[in-house]
Amino acid sequence: MTKNTNVRISLPAVCFVWQIAMIILFGVFVRYNEESDTHWIEHRRRKNISTNLENDFYYRYPSFQDVHVMIFVGFGFLMTFLKRYSFGGVGFNFLIAAFGIQWALLMQGWFHHLDSADWKIKIGIENLINADFCVAGCLIAYGACLGKVSPVQLMVLTLFGVTLFAVEEYIILELLHVKDAGGSMVIHTFGAYYGLTISWILYRPMLSLSKHVQGSVYHSDVFAMIGTLFLWMFWPSFNSAIADHGDGQHRAVINTYLALASSVLTTFAISSLLRKHGKLDMIHIQNATLAGGVAMGTASEFMITPYGSLIVGFCTGIVSTLGYQFLTPFMEKTLKIQDTCGIHNLHAMPGVIGGIVGAVTAASASESVYGKEGLINTFDFKDAITNRTVSIQGGYQAAGLCVAIAFGLAGGALVGGILKLPIWGDPADGNCFDDDVYWEVPEDEVEDEDIASRHPNMNHAGSMADVYQRSNV
Amino acid sequence: MTKNTNVRISLPAVCFVWQIAMIILFGVFVRYNEESDTHWIEHRRRKNISTNLENDFYYRYPSFQDVHVMIFVGFGFLMTFLKRYSFGGVGFNFLIAAFGIQWALLMQGWFHHLDSADWKIKIGIENLINADFCVAGCLIAYGACLGKVSPVQLMVLTLFGVTLFAVEEYIILELLHVKDAGGSMVIHTFGAYYGLTISWILYRPMLSLSKHVQGSVYHSDVFAMIGTLFLWMFWPSFNSAIADHGDGQHRAVINTYLALASSVLTTFAISSLLRKHGKLDMIHIQNATLAGGVAMGTASEFMITPYGSLIVGFCTGIVSTLGYQFLTPFMEKTLKIQDTCGIHNLHAMPGVIGGIVGAVTAASASESVYGKEGLINTFDFKDAITNRTVSIQGGYQAAGLCVAIAFGLAGGALVGGILKLPIWGDPADGNCFDDDVYWEVPEDEVEDEDIASRHPNMNHAGSMADVYQRSNV
Amino acid sequence: MTKNTNVRISLPAVCFVWQIAMIILFGVFVRYNEESDTHWIEHRRRKNISTNLENDFYYRYPSFQDVHVMIFVGFGFLMTFLKRYSFGGVGFNFLIAAFGIQWALLMQGWFHHLDSADWKIKIGIENLINADFCVAGCLIAYGACLGKVSPVQLMVLTLFGVTLFAVEEYIILELLHVKDAGGSMVIHTFGAYYGLTISWILYRPMLSLSKHVQGSVYHSDVFAMIGTLFLWMFWPSFNSAIADHGDGQHRAVINTYLALASSVLTTFAISSLLRKHGKLDMIHIQNATLAGGVAMGTASEFMITPYGSLIVGFCTGIVSTLGYQFLTPFMEKTLKIQDTCGIHNLHAMPGVIGGIVGAVTAASASESVYGKEGLINTFDFKDAITNRTVSIQGGYQAAGLCVAIAFGLAGGALVGGILKLPIWGDPADGNCFDDDVYWEVPEDEVEDEDIASRHPNMNHAGSMADVYQRSNV
Repeated sequence: MTKNTNVRISLPAVCFVWQIAMIILFGVFVRYNEESDTHWIEHRRRKNISTNLENDFYYRYPSFQDVHVMIFVGFGFLMTFLKRYSFGGVGFNFLIAAFGIQWALLMQGWFHHLDSADWKIKIGIENLINADFCVAGCLIAYGACLGKVSPVQLMVLTLFGVTLFAVEEYIILELLHVKDAGGSMVIHTFGAYYGLTISWILYRPMLSLSKHVQGSVYHSDVFAMIGTLFLWMFWPSFNSAIADHGDGQHRAVINTYLALASSVLTTFAISSLLRKHGKLDMIHIQNATLAGGVAMGTASEFMITPYGSLIVGFCTGIVSTLGYQFLTPFMEKTLKIQDTCGIHNLHAMPGVIGGIVGAVTAASASESVYGKEGLINTFDFKDAITNRTVSIQGGYQAAGLCVAIAFGLAGGALVGGILKLPIWGDPADGNCFDDDVYWEVPEDEVEDEDIASRHPNMNHAGSMADVYQRSNV
Repeated sequence: MTKNTNVRISLPAVCFVWQIAMIILFGVFVRYNEESDTHWIEHRRRKNISTNLENDFYYRYPSFQDVHVMIFVGFGFLMTFLKRYSFGGVGFNFLIAAFGIQWALLMQGWFHHLDSADWKIKIGIENLINADFCVAGCLIAYGACLGKVSPVQLMVLTLFGVTLFAVEEYIILELLHVKDAGGSMVIHTFGAYYGLTISWILYRPMLSLSKHVQGSVYHSDVFAMIGTLFLWMFWPSFNSAIADHGDGQHRAVINTYLALASSVLTTFAISSLLRKHGKLDMIHIQNATLAGGVAMGTASEFMITPYGSLIVGFCTGIVSTLGYQFLTPFMEKTLKIQDTCGIHNLHAMPGVIGGIVGAVTAASASESVYGKEGLINTFDFKDAITNRTVSIQGGYQAAGLCVAIAFGLAGGALVGGILKLPIWGDPADGNCFDDDVYWEVPEDEVEDEDIASRHPNMNHAGSMADVYQRSNV
Repeated sequence: MTKNTNVRISLPAVCFVWQIAMIILFGVFVRYNEESDTHWIEHRRRKNISTNLENDFYYRYPSFQDVHVMIFVGFGFLMTFLKRYSFGGVGFNFLIAAFGIQWALLMQGWFHHLDSADWKIKIGIENLINADFCVAGCLIAYGACLGKVSPVQLMVLTLFGVTLFAVEEYIILELLHVKDAGGSMVIHTFGAYYGLTISWILYRPMLSLSKHVQGSVYHSDVFAMIGTLFLWMFWPSFNSAIADHGDGQHRAVINTYLALASSVLTTFAISSLLRKHGKLDMIHIQNATLAGGVAMGTASEFMITPYGSLIVGFCTGIVSTLGYQFLTPFMEKTLKIQDTCGIHNLHAMPGVIGGIVGAVTAASASESVYGKEGLINTFDFKDAITNRTVSIQGGYQAAGLCVAIAFGLAGGALVGGILKLPIWGDPADGNCFDDDVYWEVPEDEVEDEDIASRHPNMNHAGSMADVYQRSNV
């Protein structure tokens, strides 16, 4: 029944090997770009740039920091909801995100930013944002596996996840010229199907043995709300962070803000409708309220109109909440997919909806709405795709969605197979969702001597205090 | 003694009806403005704007995100301090803010941004900030009612609150040409009197039946500090978010930063002075430290001088802390106003002080201090009010304060009357401050089988563990 | 054994006296600078500044807000990890930071920004950032003393700490012309040695009497992770906040981002390596992951290259984690330095490493890498130091490090001596790490009547519920 969960050799080994590899590869490949290099002043003169403010840093830094908060506090705290897995939720999220952003800078750099003159990757603020985006895919996948995998498995999941992401992103954005500023397809759909497939392969038939620690407690639910709210508040930054300067970023913020607001109301409505006495379920509030942001990822830059954004949020809030109620148990029982955080409801379905919304919105774009220049700028109808029409663009958008799903499924199958090897130190079925396996967990609440010292006249209750203390360990 | 708190029909109905109404009204009325529309590039050319950075988005987006954090995490977590009402504090705050910002975009749009050419509201980043501001008034009002109302009542409170706010704001800012960048009057004074009047009308004579869950526990007080600190840190953004570009925003930040710092010291001082052994009270620290920000709302743009800001913070810290100690119990006992969060001390009094400070500072402004252009820019002495003098401006500022109070009282009376109808599913007096009424609350701490599985030799203590478990449910 | 910890007179007195002194000194000395004054519009015209965006406010405000979050939420919540000292951790951090920023504006103003024309200090957004930086030194020092000092002592520690900081900073930055944008030396090294020396002088031989409350509990560790993550995420803003406009800020962000990511991996690796079964220690994760940010403080503006940043983070993560494991117990036992938060591992060692890295990087700078202008801009080789070479600059950097250490040690000795006076109301050895001394602490969890009201048939367990309740007080 018990498994060897000792990671004392494997975890340090993986961390060291991969970090050293990063240093070597960065040494060979990565340099500052012209905006973060001390030659910027010469570059400015050459390009006749009148002010330091035109450095992309000032366009994107505030959005970058918001995205950074979403990755580390947003995803991290959202996963603290389990009563005894808060350390693992926020801690392993921290570990794999910190590794993933480094590997993403390299992978995305090789595909998108390799300077053909000297074969170096030149990085700036936009690369940092993209690295954060890339790692988001893996954190979504972690959500399906939360509590059931070892940190070593997570490092492997992230290594492959980032790699697959970079390839998929290259195909969708560069080869197919699909627009996906907020990553409904590239990030959410891919990440979700990647994680779900892994979870399906790692199916644990006896997981009910860990049922006693699978739920939340009162305060762990409040911690999770920190994650929810920081994700919710900063999602407009997520969807606008790499959108076009000017109206592109501006419009993406408005659309996302509205879709998210709308999701909240339908989530509360459906959650209340589903339970006796109309009592709300924290799982719904923590998750489905975010569905509008996911679904607005592709179309956020488009002229979807404010009420269009509200409609998207309206529908995804409903779909996502119903998913938590009906689909997750169904998937676990029938499809053998154990999805701890319900990423199918928060990322897979809203991501797919977002991709479809993007395709439809693109296909129905018109010069009368966008203006001649606006249409070209929004869809980048220049260079190789100068003559592409909006309906063809719509088709490519749909194709991009399929690529994302395909990469998620195939990649998940591959990586799931690797993670099934019995060498990674994962917990036994009865040992899941328990920080005690990988963390030094403090004894909870006041200790025996503490009680005794404060209540010296409690001798008569000695044995009881003893029970009390142990029962809290 | 018990009341029907079943909101299974009413809450979903209200959420759906209002969200659908929003979609329809947005469809009819709301469009992107020239800075968030794809025609921005043509607009730039027409207006000879040299860079995308001149898009208002780049002036205001960082402040907007900070304000957004204050609304959802700041107000939300400040209201988690009750031991068994943290879900309701942060969750209902989330619900009504998400609804309120939509309704505020419409209401404020109709009053301030209706394009007479096509009868559309054209929205951009400043509208989003103003919508967040508007909803702040309702969240303040929620503070007085925390734990004693149903989510349906809160939706009604917000619907009317936003409506009243938009009218009051129109009168104060557009008709009276009063300056109130951070909303001491428009937001805080109005919101507080609105909430207090409602609470007065909904007086619960037997509220002491819920006394056992009215206090805080150790960790809920720490959660509330998250709210306090995010409010405190981002208040400079709140007061500067819609201030004038350039020196206006810059000065508003400095003034608010200083007033807040000063409040902290006097709050700690008075709190310590009031208790045996000088022990500090968390309620004071969580709330009164913010009073300087409230009171600096009106004058933050003015040349109040750095030491003037310190003095404002100094006084309001004292007033607010004394209010928590003496006024709140007095109001409950004598005036029959039950003010759960003490908004009278944090918003009403500092808001009124802020309004008076603004009036006095405006009246004593002079060309020698502001410069000729500076005076005109700061007070907008142009168009309809070109010839207004500073002393007349001071009078109008005072009039604005009266309008805010009047709207709060009258609006609260109206809405309080509506909320008194016995159809809203509010809890009985002995059932307040308890999440169990409207939320699925998880069983707390480790469960029975958990204890048993970890301590298999604890059979002799079976009955005790049993008691322990149940006593924690 | 017990000491008088009554601060009912001393704490209010100190708060009032110091706040009133601030108001008087601000009244005499502090005014708005030309960018935050209403004369800005005339200033713009005079200097031919084309847009409001050139107001330094727009370059620095987003970074300022991030730094502000680090000071109040970052440091504050990092110190909530103790099971019964979370109020004191976050609350006293709030108090002394709010006082310290005011005093820092004055001290730094006198040394750096005194306008010789009218003997006024003219403040703007950069002064606010520097004030936050200055206070960080004192908050680091607080980390060593956490739980063992009274709030009055902390106010004294801050008063002297800010004073010493301003002098030290003046010597290092203005007289020696040393570069230290993120303060590895000026902030971290100084602050850490200042705090450690104070802690050494205030050595408590019988501190083990408080051992029962010295550890963490599960949820206090999660609270501390809020602090860790906000520090970690916003450290790029910290190191870039006052860096040069344009490439300087941009490069500082990239370098810090990478060093921090690298620290995380080596911290996890070493933490796992040190414990049975490879179990991770939350203390390491909460602290050592930040070491890369500290160590990148000096060199963040330099062309240290991306892989150079990774190497710095790699090494400091290891050093810091090993420090927590081996040095802290050694220092406590042998050197009689009780360092509650382990600031020696997080700030002193990484700070010194950062200073050395900065000196070496500066000494090895070259025109071929930086460009002629880039070299001059980065190191400010103009005015008094036009002819300084990079190797001489390296020497000065090293000298700056020595000044920081010397000020920390000497200042700590002085202030430690003052704080040893028996008049400050500090707790007895057996009374440390306990909020009950200075705070009204709520009774924990559900109360007796609550249990009774929910379980009316529990009479037979009356005495047990009673024990349960008291044992939680």
